[in-house]
Amino acid sequence: MKLTDLPTPCLVLDQRVLDHNIAMMATALARHNVPLRPHMKTAKSIDVAHRVLQGQPGAITVSTIAEARYFASHGIKDILLAAGITPHKLDLVAQIPATVTVITDDADMAAIIGAHQAKAPVLIEVDTGEHRGGVAPGSDTLLTIARNLGSTLRGVMTHAGHSYAGRTIADMAATAETERAGITTAAQRLRDAGHRVDVVSMGSSPTALHAQSLQGVTEVRAGVYMFGDLFQAEICTHGLTDIAVTVLTSVIGRRPDQNRVLVDAGGIALSKDRSTAAVPKDYAFGRVLDANGNATLGDAMVITTYQEHGVIQGDPAFPLTHLKIGDRLRIAPNHTCLTVAQHEKYHIVNGTDDVIAEWGRVNGW
Amino acid sequence: MKLTDLPTPCLVLDQRVLDHNIAMMATALARHNVPLRPHMKTAKSIDVAHRVLQGQPGAITVSTIAEARYFASHGIKDILLAAGITPHKLDLVAQIPATVTVITDDADMAAIIGAHQAKAPVLIEVDTGEHRGGVAPGSDTLLTIARNLGSTLRGVMTHAGHSYAGRTIADMAATAETERAGITTAAQRLRDAGHRVDVVSMGSSPTALHAQSLQGVTEVRAGVYMFGDLFQAEICTHGLTDIAVTVLTSVIGRRPDQNRVLVDAGGIALSKDRSTAAVPKDYAFGRVLDANGNATLGDAMVITTYQEHGVIQGDPAFPLTHLKIGDRLRIAPNHTCLTVAQHEKYHIVNGTDDVIAEWGRVNGW
Repeated sequence: MKLTDLPTPCLVLDQRVLDHNIAMMATALARHNVPLRPHMKTAKSIDVAHRVLQGQPGAITVSTIAEARYFASHGIKDILLAAGITPHKLDLVAQIPATVTVITDDADMAAIIGAHQAKAPVLIEVDTGEHRGGVAPGSDTLLTIARNLGSTLRGVMTHAGHSYAGRTIADMAATAETERAGITTAAQRLRDAGHRVDVVSMGSSPTALHAQSLQGVTEVRAGVYMFGDLFQAEICTHGLTDIAVTVLTSVIGRRPDQNRVLVDAGGIALSKDRSTAAVPKDYAFGRVLDANGNATLGDAMVITTYQEHGVIQGDPAFPLTHLKIGDRLRIAPNHTCLTVAQHEKYHIVNGTDDVIAEWGRVNGW
Repeated sequence: MKLTDLPTPCLVLDQRVLDHNIAMMATALARHNVPLRPHMKTAKSIDVAHRVLQGQPGAITVSTIAEARYFASHGIKDILLAAGITPHKLDLVAQIPATVTVITDDADMAAIIGAHQAKAPVLIEVDTGEHRGGVAPGSDTLLTIARNLGSTLRGVMTHAGHSYAGRTIADMAATAETERAGITTAAQRLRDAGHRVDVVSMGSSPTALHAQSLQGVTEVRAGVYMFGDLFQAEICTHGLTDIAVTVLTSVIGRRPDQNRVLVDAGGIALSKDRSTAAVPKDYAFGRVLDANGNATLGDAMVITTYQEHGVIQGDPAFPLTHLKIGDRLRIAPNHTCLTVAQHEKYHIVNGTDDVIAEWGRVNGW
């Protein structure tokens, strides 16, 4: 099958680029001799997991119960559910045939987990600067939660999502050190209070790649780097040509007088994410590549999205007048996690227009 | 089953509100004696279609091939695919066991359709002011397309998406008249040139509701009004309490010092749509209601979304300190079409916390 045979819009995943990105992260972490617990929240695919787990212990991170169930059903035995657990979800986790470690940053919830019959292993979520979830490394609450968890406590985890505010490799290295210092401080305080702390988990794609030291850290989590996107390219996680996933789309209308075309990838197919609005180069709703995935159209981008329509504005130096109705283009995503979540599967290519496989993914909750 | 038994995040659809909205539109169109061809791109559910088609001819509008296939498989016989057709999609349409009318605004594509063995019926897309797709009512291209379509021509259609720029009922009535005048002008020009024009189709939820005349129009399309959303409430399509769909979510973290909670409805569950950024009252990523769907939390809204996390900022006058981990809230969507597209099904309620049914929907392309 060829790319031209696929109905549009759909996802195209270039295995060469994926493998390159996987190797880049593995090399970065090998320097520190720290294992990767890949975050599968972006890819949500067992086929991607198999590639990223080569040479790793086989443990993964997920963001939803549906992912935990899916990966367990495909043989993954060690899963970290990295979003705050609730009483109801604790019951659901107990039914999954794998070791599912949960997280909390709440003393009352810790008491519920400690008393729950499932005895799910738990990491305490620590805030090392993102201020989304987590307790401060130096807080009394950290120790209260540990006491309430009792024998279910396994360790601590943090996510330096504030690394996304950085713009240079030096920024990322500095944030990584803040993340490492915070999480190891939390671990040490728990140990000083008499708790056993086996797991000290940190991670985000930028800090995992650019950390100068991971001393005291037992595992690193990262996910978006596998596919990459325009935002991550702007914050130095990878280069512009290291984006493994694109949305294949068809021209459905032409406005040559405005150097515009209308395509069938709209707000659902691309997502409405506008992450690059915050970085120097704003790609609106995505960067437009030709049907082969090459950047031959200059600065063409999707400037407007409706539910099922996208408006592509051509670069004045690269007129879109050669395009006819039905011609294909590919769109590099602004924020890949949100874009791929709009689709049920990946069409796999290997640098050519041959579709060599179809990989499923799990959506929903 | 009760709402508290549902895993979160998920969609809750209140049948009472849905039926109210359906009745409101039916009454508005009955004044003009013009039938509704409901646009199912928002609901994408045969159960919703059955309710909205009561008292109507049974024809619908869709936005994707997947919708056309799904509704045909559920017995709908007359379907308008209201997004520009391509050669590849024309082949796919030919395989669907229903009459699928397609649209085009392109003279070359019209020639391809005219020569295609499927002989799918066609409406010419006319631009009455939105400037997304369509040919101008007075253009030469309109007549060229009609000639190229030959015997496949059935009529003309337009969508006054620019009604969304209006803010008052008077604005919507004025836009509706522009839409009506444009599409009937196009129809008359085709008739004057000797073409038979059976279908003169227009519509958007605001203009369908507020049109003062539909003289010369043979059918009206509208979709988002069935569910409603915060944006439509702001542009006078309906009231704030007429939003039929909410996202049920669970508290997964607490920041009482900031009057904030973290919930499990993030950018995937809610979508990243920010339609209300353009209207007087901006609801960020959604308005927060209590577990019963009532507005007892003042101006609480989802101010930030991560992939699977939403940050709710409480109203200073309505502190969120009563909320515990696992407590439920409901979020009224900013743009319902994008939000419901993130989910596979609707959990149906009827004004109480009893879940009385589950309705499926079709996603993808």
